[in-house]
Order: sequence, then structure tokens, then C-alpha cells
Amino acid sequence: MERTQGRRDDELRPVEIVRGFTPNASGSVLFKAGATTVLVTAQISDSVPPFLDGKGVGWLTAEYAMLPGSTPTRVQRRTDGRATEIQRLIGRSLRAIVDRKALGPCTVHVDADVLNADGGTRTAAITASFVAVADALKRKFGDRAGTILRDSIAAVSVGIVAGRPVLDLDYPEDSTADVDVNVVRLGGGGLVEVQGTGEGGVFSRPQLAELLDLAEAGIDRLATLQKEALGADWPWPA
Amino acid sequence: MERTQGRRDDELRPVEIVRGFTPNASGSVLFKAGATTVLVTAQISDSVPPFLDGKGVGWLTAEYAMLPGSTPTRVQRRTDGRATEIQRLIGRSLRAIVDRKALGPCTVHVDADVLNADGGTRTAAITASFVAVADALKRKFGDRAGTILRDSIAAVSVGIVAGRPVLDLDYPEDSTADVDVNVVRLGGGGLVEVQGTGEGGVFSRPQLAELLDLAEAGIDRLATLQKEALGADWPWPA
Amino acid sequence: MERTQGRRDDELRPVEIVRGFTPNASGSVLFKAGATTVLVTAQISDSVPPFLDGKGVGWLTAEYAMLPGSTPTRVQRRTDGRATEIQRLIGRSLRAIVDRKALGPCTVHVDADVLNADGGTRTAAITASFVAVADALKRKFGDRAGTILRDSIAAVSVGIVAGRPVLDLDYPEDSTADVDVNVVRLGGGGLVEVQGTGEGGVFSRPQLAELLDLAEAGIDRLATLQKEALGADWPWPA
Amino acid sequence: MERTQGRRDDELRPVEIVRGFTPNASGSVLFKAGATTVLVTAQISDSVPPFLDGKGVGWLTAEYAMLPGSTPTRVQRRTDGRATEIQRLIGRSLRAIVDRKALGPCTVHVDADVLNADGGTRTAAITASFVAVADALKRKFGDRAGTILRDSIAAVSVGIVAGRPVLDLDYPEDSTADVDVNVVRLGGGGLVEVQGTGEGGVFSRPQLAELLDLAEAGIDRLATLQKEALGADWPWPA
Amino acid sequence: MERTQGRRDDELRPVEIVRGFTPNASGSVLFKAGATTVLVTAQISDSVPPFLDGKGVGWLTAEYAMLPGSTPTRVQRRTDGRATEIQRLIGRSLRAIVDRKALGPCTVHVDADVLNADGGTRTAAITASFVAVADALKRKFGDRAGTILRDSIAAVSVGIVAGRPVLDLDYPEDSTADVDVNVVRLGGGGLVEVQGTGEGGVFSRPQLAELLDLAEAGIDRLATLQKEALGADWPWPA
Amino acid sequence: MERTQGRRDDELRPVEIVRGFTPNASGSVLFKAGATTVLVTAQISDSVPPFLDGKGVGWLTAEYAMLPGSTPTRVQRRTDGRATEIQRLIGRSLRAIVDRKALGPCTVHVDADVLNADGGTRTAAITASFVAVADALKRKFGDRAGTILRDSIAAVSVGIVAGRPVLDLDYPEDSTADVDVNVVRLGGGGLVEVQGTGEGGVFSRPQLAELLDLAEAGIDRLATLQKEALGADWPWPA
Repeated sequence: MERTQGRRDDELRPVEIVRGFTPNASGSVLFKAGATTVLVTAQISDSVPPFLDGKGVGWLTAEYAMLPGSTPTRVQRRTDGRATEIQRLIGRSLRAIVDRKALGPCTVHVDADVLNADGGTRTAAITASFVAVADALKRKFGDRAGTILRDSIAAVSVGIVAGRPVLDLDYPEDSTADVDVNVVRLGGGGLVEVQGTGEGGVFSRPQLAELLDLAEAGIDRLATLQKEALGADWPWPA
Repeated sequence: MERTQGRRDDELRPVEIVRGFTPNASGSVLFKAGATTVLVTAQISDSVPPFLDGKGVGWLTAEYAMLPGSTPTRVQRRTDGRATEIQRLIGRSLRAIVDRKALGPCTVHVDADVLNADGGTRTAAITASFVAVADALKRKFGDRAGTILRDSIAAVSVGIVAGRPVLDLDYPEDSTADVDVNVVRLGGGGLVEVQGTGEGGVFSRPQLAELLDLAEAGIDRLATLQKEALGADWPWPA
Repeated sequence: MERTQGRRDDELRPVEIVRGFTPNASGSVLFKAGATTVLVTAQISDSVPPFLDGKGVGWLTAEYAMLPGSTPTRVQRRTDGRATEIQRLIGRSLRAIVDRKALGPCTVHVDADVLNADGGTRTAAITASFVAVADALKRKFGDRAGTILRDSIAAVSVGIVAGRPVLDLDYPEDSTADVDVNVVRLGGGGLVEVQGTGEGGVFSRPQLAELLDLAEAGIDRLATLQKEALGADWPWPA
Repeated sequence: MERTQGRRDDELRPVEIVRGFTPNASGSVLFKAGATTVLVTAQISDSVPPFLDGKGVGWLTAEYAMLPGSTPTRVQRRTDGRATEIQRLIGRSLRAIVDRKALGPCTVHVDADVLNADGGTRTAAITASFVAVADALKRKFGDRAGTILRDSIAAVSVGIVAGRPVLDLDYPEDSTADVDVNVVRLGGGGLVEVQGTGEGGVFSRPQLAELLDLAEAGIDRLATLQKEALGADWPWPA
Repeated sequence: MERTQGRRDDELRPVEIVRGFTPNASGSVLFKAGATTVLVTAQISDSVPPFLDGKGVGWLTAEYAMLPGSTPTRVQRRTDGRATEIQRLIGRSLRAIVDRKALGPCTVHVDADVLNADGGTRTAAITASFVAVADALKRKFGDRAGTILRDSIAAVSVGIVAGRPVLDLDYPEDSTADVDVNVVRLGGGGLVEVQGTGEGGVFSRPQLAELLDLAEAGIDRLATLQKEALGADWPWPA
Repeated sequence: MERTQGRRDDELRPVEIVRGFTPNASGSVLFKAGATTVLVTAQISDSVPPFLDGKGVGWLTAEYAMLPGSTPTRVQRRTDGRATEIQRLIGRSLRAIVDRKALGPCTVHVDADVLNADGGTRTAAITASFVAVADALKRKFGDRAGTILRDSIAAVSVGIVAGRPVLDLDYPEDSTADVDVNVVRLGGGGLVEVQGTGEGGVFSRPQLAELLDLAEAGIDRLATLQKEALGADWPWPA
């Protein structure tokens, strides 16, 4: 099996991160990993959900959707089970890096819309969200963004395709994978989520370890790309 | 009153038309008019709605949505009354140029998603849709696209702002306009829709005539831009 | 082509306006234009929608529905795209004559229910709504109704049927019309809405002008009928 | 306690039955009992619900709604628990008189819309429905209507108000009643539904018997009014 | 016709009442009548619905659902018309024994979930609810439960099956019954609800009387079983 | 920290498996792990979802719900994001052991209803589902059940509580855990799902390995209990 465009098994697809893609949202990032294209916006409102009223801490919430034209066959606009699962994952992951006390009584709204889908949209959404949230916090809070955020966060998918562990599956790979693991990790190390699924197959402990090795290397690379994209707006001292 | 960036009263905002913005949809157009940014995709399925079963003719349907990050304050994802009204307008307008018999038993799905809103999103969506539909028909039917489409179509808004008739209102103008008229017209002339609304004011017959003059000149210009954008893929002989 | 019951091209259908058709609602008008029958009620509540809280001004909102038995084949009870579009039109039109500051923090609820549909239900609803709202305001505010309302308002449809411009289309005419224009105007002149649609066809500027002439004459006649129906309750000095 | 307009305890409110109130529906009856006003339409479609496919028998289904202006304070358009309960009662009652085999694979759609509510709307809807259904069956099936319908059906409410059993409660009576019983009966005798509720109170077996006596006398009177209203269209030999 | 397991016509199915079936809810009763199995929980919250705000009185509300596996063929999870009707009946019945003033500004939530359905689930739910509510009130209010509750309440179904009046119909009997009457009564006498339905048939006044006799005897027996089940927690002096 | 009832860190809560808890469903299992109580039913219908029409293979689908009385404070009946996520997990897990070709064109419906919640409801639901599905397949297909099922499956949660890795968290432990991992595994080994979440914390690779060791030992024990519960109905030769 040859990977598309001759990718090595441990190689990410080409990544492109465009900040400020649209002007109205405080944070707006167009993120491409190969043909997968996600637009993530971050907006901050000065209120919190009812269950946090008067507690002085903030919240972060996420929504995820696929635009109808994002796949070769049109998809309907609706929040199905898969989308629900993904937006919960995005929200949980991003909350892991937000010091909600330092944030204060605000809500960060993250919206990830898939403009074109070619595998790995949920992990792309998480990686892009970090950049969008950093931008939005910077615009509102200036240098305090670096105390509200604890670390950077990024995610990638790994899987066993045709018997071989590979990094960053595109759609054709994903749809034939025996095992699929999504990994979310802090830039500085520290796993936030590991979601491994035997899609029609099962996996062993050693296979899981090998996949996590691949994923961690990929996340290291994504963390570097996030830092390069943010440049002088990286929330912490370089 | 000075218009933003020194625009003349009869001047369009700068227009940018990017074809093939995303690869999966047959037609995919990123359309900008000033800061208003709309992504329109067109996809063709080989089936028709129940009410056309067995009649041998096709259909075109449209959906319109604003992404949550498209405005400075986040908008919720939902098809409210305004969106319903707009998507009906887009569908009706585009059906005016489709020879549904020549199309045959297919459905053209147009999806207009507003990535950034600064006034005139519905007319931008119509103007962009023509390009996306032309691309999708070309990809599926080749040169027959020119017999399925009867003409090009474009739309623009005009209004009376601070007592003066102006072309192509941006959001600050739109929100203070006394009268607002959306005009949809074939490239070759022939009005398809005229929707004039006294927003808090009323208007006279002479005012309406003056606004339609402005709109027709704007549509002539948009028709030229559509033709330039499609280049060799313009569906008819140049 | 002969019009039903020998109507001239510039002739309205017979109009009947029954005030106080039901006793519970403050305003209740049964309005017939030929076989088209609409029941419009107006009720005033002492509260405003959240977006007007504390602003001291009032609001007017409208709902439109077709009863299941209003057409030869039963229609389902649901607010589809068409109904949404119509109720937004009714609300916008009626708000054009309401001085919301003079109204104060109240909401006028207009409900237009089509009991029998034979074309022109939306314009019938607007014309009837004026009478129902006038009655409701009179009952609650007495002579102050005349300062809350700025003018009367009425609406009519015009269209090109079999090549001829005609006034007040019934259903058979409407379903074969090439062009259909709904016009809403103040009793004293001043256009509020002009919605022209080429239903399968297109229209020219001269055709639009001719149709607006027809519509204005029809609205003059409807304004007179509204005044006769209200009699001593006409909100302004005769 | 004096009843409104000096009614005796065993006296119905004045009843008015207008057949053909609207022309499009096959059966259309405006029914008034005092200030309670219900419009019932009946329409027959040539299809059956999925669970009856291919069985050769027909169905009758009913919907019930209150128009927003039917009460002094506006009611929202929605099928709440009460409406659901009522439309099930109407459907069940009317099916009791329909020979579904004789009807054949058709569905009778009954729609009862309350234009003005002053107590007893559900029983008014049932009594009116009989007339509307008879009209609709006559129009479609001619004299066969008399074999499809087994008997006439009517309904009335009775209750204990201020300690006294009374017939046909209006809204002020209904809202202070200790016990409320709705009775549905065939014209020729034969109870179809008895729904007795102690609204805040309880009732004894002798009280129930006394109320049923009152109800049966009321239904006898309603059956006569139905027969007079249908005149020559009464489905059976006089 | 022989009844299942040789039951006499006036004989209840074997009843089993398990209190405290689950620990988290304040009241939790597993109730079996033959194969019909219902789990009823009661929980008390310290708030009231908006329409009772500030009035100092409490409320009781009920929900009823069938678990998907409760019937031989899976039933979908949804509150259809039948469930709506039943949960309204349960709520109304239980409110008949609650002194809402003595309860104070609390809401008692009753949830009846059918684990296995074999006829008579709504009456089983009512009979079980009394025990669950008594338990929940006892846990929260101690001996004051006896002043909040006015009496016990129980319910049973009766019907005419193959021409014979029988008590406590199981599903095969219920589905062939000509008449079906659900009776809700206080332990001490006093009818709360009588809902008689001619399912495809009609019934006479003498038949109704005979059925009510059967039902009252059954309810007497159920009241005794409730008292035995509650034992020392019976809310009133023995 | 002492665990409730003196449990060791690697000790499961007491497990109780009651087969045939309700008679109507083909498979019906009441499963208790400590105070967590789940009722799982399995039913088999002779049809498949549309996307499998004519393919000759079967399907398994799952729904998960918490009864309102399952927690100390009442929970509303609704399929929120969490429930959606869980029912997708249950369905995916069980499909991993079903040979859908051997099953043929049938659908296995699994319904997991939480009667009492004390942590670990999703893993309890999976473990119970295996027994319910085995029973349902046995009842319908007899000994062929052993070829339709590939292996047994069970699940358990593990987590880091107060710094210590522990097995089978109850609710108090779960709500204070830093890390929470749900593990689904075949009886014979082979991971099906690993879902690790840093709830407010992060975790390292060595911690993950330690937790998976704990989980695997727990699953071995649960597999034994499943086998004991099924006894002679264990689908494969002992």
C-alpha cells in the first residue's frame, strides 16, 4: 500500500493555518490538513450558562457542523449523534487548557465548521480551535491571555490501515482502517483524551502503544506549527 | 454623509469571486463583496422531490445559513424566519434561469453559507449561486450546461440612506436605510424579483424608479464580473 | 380570456368586512374577497418581547395560518416557509402604521387564519388586520387609538395573466400568472412593500409601472371600504 | 345562583348550525352553542394510514385546535396535552358511527377549530362533526352515506356547579364546577364515551346517575337539531 | 370463555408491591399486577411551576412512559397521544388527594415507567403512585405526610368481554373488550374519575352500573393491599 | 482515602445479573453493580435500516436512557449529548461481536434504561447487553446464536482518584476523579474501545498502562460472571 502523494506512515498531511480569515469574529482560523478544511471561529460573550451564575468562573463551549457541500454527496444540516459526540470532545478538550477562574464570568464560544471533509475533521477542529481561542483571548484580554490559557493543545488521528500503523488518516484510509485512535494532548505533554475504536476489528495493548507513539510525534509537529502561526501572539514568553 | 472608503453612490463594493474554493462540491464559490463573504456550493443529485416523481423534469433548491461567527456577536445556528425567506428567494431566483425539462430528473442543491456578514448577503448569495451552479452543471453535463441554463442571473440591493439613493448597501448603511430594495435580474435584462420594503418609512413611485435604475446598472456590472470569473466555462458562446 | 363572473381587469372581487365576528378577541374581523375568507383577530398584551424590555416602546407581531379545510385538498397544520414569509410581511406592514412610542410597552398580537383560500390571502390578511387592530386599540385606548395609528393600510395583488395586467387575482388566475406583485400601501399614499415575482417568467420596467397603477387604484377602493366598515370608529376625524 | 340569561338547569344554550360555511371543504359546519363557536370541516382522501394498507377498510381521524384569538387572553398555537386528549376523543367518537368496511380505503379528516371558546368546545366539536361528516360523505358517496354511517352522534357536558347538577356548562360554570362529565351518545341511544372528572372534588354513584339523566335529555335535543339542520340530507329515511 | 389462570370475573390478578425498589428516588415502587409491571418513582423539588409562583401552594405532576422492551414488539420512546392522555390522568388523580396548601411551595414529580405491559398499565400506575408519593412525603415531611394527603387512591379497569363484565382486564381481554371503563376512587369512597369507552361498541346505563360495582369491589381490595404494603408508614392512624 | 464498604482498589462492586426480569422482551436483564441498576432488553425485528436493504446482512442498534427517578434529583427525559454518546458506544461495542452476515436481515434492538445511577452506567449497560443479546438470539435462532456471536464482551471503568488508580468507580469517586477511562474488551481478549478522558487533569502514558491493567483484570472477572449467569445458555461449548 502506497499512501496518497507518497506520504510516509509517520508523516502529517501538509498543514495550512490562516488566522483572521474573517473579520467579524474575534478569532477566525481557516485550517487545512491536506484537503480537510475547517473554519474555526472563537467569540467571547460576557455571560455564563445558568449553572455557573454567580460563581465567578467562566465557560467554554463548542459546536461542530459539516457544511452541506463539504462531502462529495451533500450532507444535511443537522446535529446528529456523530456531531454531538465531536462537539462535546472539542469543548472538553479546550476546557482542559482554560483556567476558568482566570477567565472570569465569560463564555468562549468555539464554532468549527467543516468546509471540506477528507478525514480527521475533529482533530483538525481541535488544533485550529487553540489558535482561534488564543486570538480571541488576546484581542479581549491582551497579555492576560497567557494566564488564562495553561498550555497549547493539539490533536491528531492515528490508525491501523492494511495492517500498518499510520499517522493522520485521510478519508480513504479512515474508511478502511481496522483501528482508529484520536489523541488530544497538551503542547507540553500530558494526554487529555485517548479515544480508540476497533472499527470492525480489535486491537492489542502493544498496537495501542505503537499508535500513541505515532500520535505524540504528530502532535509535537502540530504544536510547532501552531506556535509558528501565532508568532508574536503566542500567549507565553518564547 | 461620506460612504465607507469614499464609494460613490452608484458604486459597488470590491467584488472577489473564487471558483473551486473547496474540492468536494461540484460547484464551490467563495464570493466577497467588501467584507461580506459567502461560500456557495452546488451539488447535483440524481433524484427529484416526491411532487416531481415520474414527470421527467428537474428541480433546484437552496438553503441559506449564517455561520455563528459571521457577525461580531455570535448568531445561533437555526433557520429562523429571515433565513427561510432568503432561501426561498434564492431558490425561486435560480429556478428562473433553469430549463427544468432540459435538466431532466435531477436536483440541483444550492447551499449559501455566510462566513462574514456586512450587508447584502442575500443578493451576494444569488450572484455567487449562478457561478456555482454553472460550474456544477458543466462538470456533470459538459456543454449541455448552456442549454440547461437560459441566462445568467445576479442581484444587488439598493436603498435610500440619509435621503440619498445608494447602490450595494453595507451593514451600517442597511441598518439606517429608510427604504431597502433587493433586485434580481437576468444578465440579459428581465426582472425576476423586486422586493422593496419601507423600513420604518414609505417610498414613492419616483423613488422606486430611481432605485431600480441604480440597481440595473449594478447588476450589469455584476454580470460582467460573473462572465470574467467563468472565463472559458461561461456556458454560452462569447 | 373572460375573468370569473365577468370581472373587469381593474375590478376587485366583492369585499365583505364583518367586525366583531367573535366576542373574546378585542378585534375580530371576518374578511371576504370573493371566496377568499380570512379571520383576523387582534389582541393586546401588557408586555413586550425581551429585546424591548425597558425601552418604553411597544411591538406588533403577526401569525398567519391556513386551516386544514381551507383548500379543496386538506393542508397540514404547520408553519412552512410560505407561512413564515407571509407572517413576516403582515407584521412588517402593520408596524409601518403603528407609532410604537405612542403605543407604549404593549404588544399587539395579530392572528390571520385563512378559513377558505382562493388567492390573495396575504393581502386580504393585511387589509383585514388594519380593521382588527383599529378595533383592538380603540377598545383598550379609546380615542388615543388615532395617535397610535399613523394612517390606514391596505394591500392587494396584481399580476399578468394571459398577457394582460389584472387586479386582485383569484386562485385560478394566480396559478397561471406570469408575474405576481403584492403591493402594500398607506391609505394616504406611500408604498410600504412592493414584492414582484416573475413566476416562471420575467417582467419589464414598463410592465411593473402598469401593475403598480392597477394596484394603487385597488388600494384606494379598499381604503374606502375599510373606512365605511369602521364608521364612527374610524380612528381619525372624518 | 342564577344561570346566565336565566337558563334552567336542564336547558341547552341556544344552538346554531350553519352548513357550508366555507366552500372548499366537502363538509364545513359553523356550530355555535351560546358564545362557543367551532368551525368543523370534513374532507375525504383516497388513501389510508400505513397500518391499514391493503386491508380494504377506511379510517377517520380528527384534529382539534383553538385559534389564538378564541379566548380573552391569546392562546399559543400548539397541540398541548389537552388538545391531544380532545382530538383523540373526537376521532374515537366519530369512528363509533362509521362502518369502516362500507367506507372502503378512504380517510375522513375531521378538523375542529375553535373560533371562540366559552366552555363545552369538545362536545360542540363532536356534535358539529357529525353534520360535517354526513355532508362530506353525501357529496362523495351520495346515498351510500346512509350505509357508511350507522347512526348520528352528539355530545354534551354536564356538571355539578354550586351543588346543583346542570346541563351544558359555559366557561364560568365549568371553571367553578366540582364535577364535570362529558357524555357522547348515539342518536338512537347507546353510550359511546362517559368521562367524569372530579375537578378538585369527588362524586358519588347517585350524583353520576343524575348527571347522566341530564346529559341524555340534552343529547336527545341535539340529535333533533342535527336532523333539522341536515333536512333532506339526513342520511337515513325520515 | 375461561379467564387466564382460571380467574373469576370479579377477581384481581395477583398484586405485588415492592417499596424502595431503587434507592435514589425518595419514593420508588415496583408494582406488579399479573405480568403488568410498573416502576413508579416520586421525587419532591422545592420549587413550583411558573403559574404558581408566590402563591404558597404546591403542585404534583406526572409522566408516563412505556420502556421499549415492555411489549413483545419494541415500542418507540416517544410521548404519543395515548401517553399524554395517561399522564394527565395520573396527575389529575393524584392531585385529588393532595392538600396543595399543606404541601407548600413544592412539586411532587411522579414518574411511571412501564417495564412490562399486559393491560391495565394506567390504573396500575395510579395505584402504585399512591404508595410512592406516600413514601416520598414521609421521607421529606415525616408525620406531616398524613395532613398533606387527604386519603388513599387506587384505580382499576373493568370491561365487557365476550358479553360478560369482568374486573382487571389483561391485554388479551382488553384488546377484545367491547367496553372498557377505568375507574379511579378514593380509599374511603368518592369517585375521582370514570372513563368509559365503547371500543367499537356502545354501552347502556345498566351495564355501566354493573361495571362500576365490579370496579368498586376491586378498588376496595387494592386499598387494603396498599395499606398492608405501607404498614407502619401508612400516613394515618390505623 | 478509604473506598466505600472497604473495597480494594482493584475490586469490582458486587454484581447481580437477573435474566428474564420481564417476560415480553426476548432478552431482559436486570444488572446491578453496587447501587447502579440497569435494565437491558434485547428484541429482534425482521427488518433492517434502509441503508442495508437488500444486502442480506443484519444490524444492531442501541438506545440508552436514564429514568427520571434514577438520580437523587430528578433528571428530565431527553436524549442529550451524553446519552447520544453513550448509546453510540453501546451499539458500536455490541456490533463488534456480531457476525452480521450470519445474523441475516434482522435488527437487534438493545435498550438500556438506568433505573438507579451510581457511576459506571455505560459500562454496566454494555456488560448487561451481552447477556440480553445472547438470550434474544438463543430464543430466536437456537444454537445458531453461537455462530452469530463471535465472542462475549464486557466493559468497566477505571480512573485515578485521589492519586490512586482504582477499578469500577462509583459516583462519588467518578465525580472527583482526575482521569476516567472506559474500557470495552472481548471476553477472549482484544480491545474494542478505550476512552480515556482527563477530567480537569491530564494523564501520562505509564498511568494509562496501569489503568488498562486494572481494567483488563476487572473485565476478566465480569466475563466469568456473564458465563455463570448464562449457564447452559452460554452460546459456545464450555
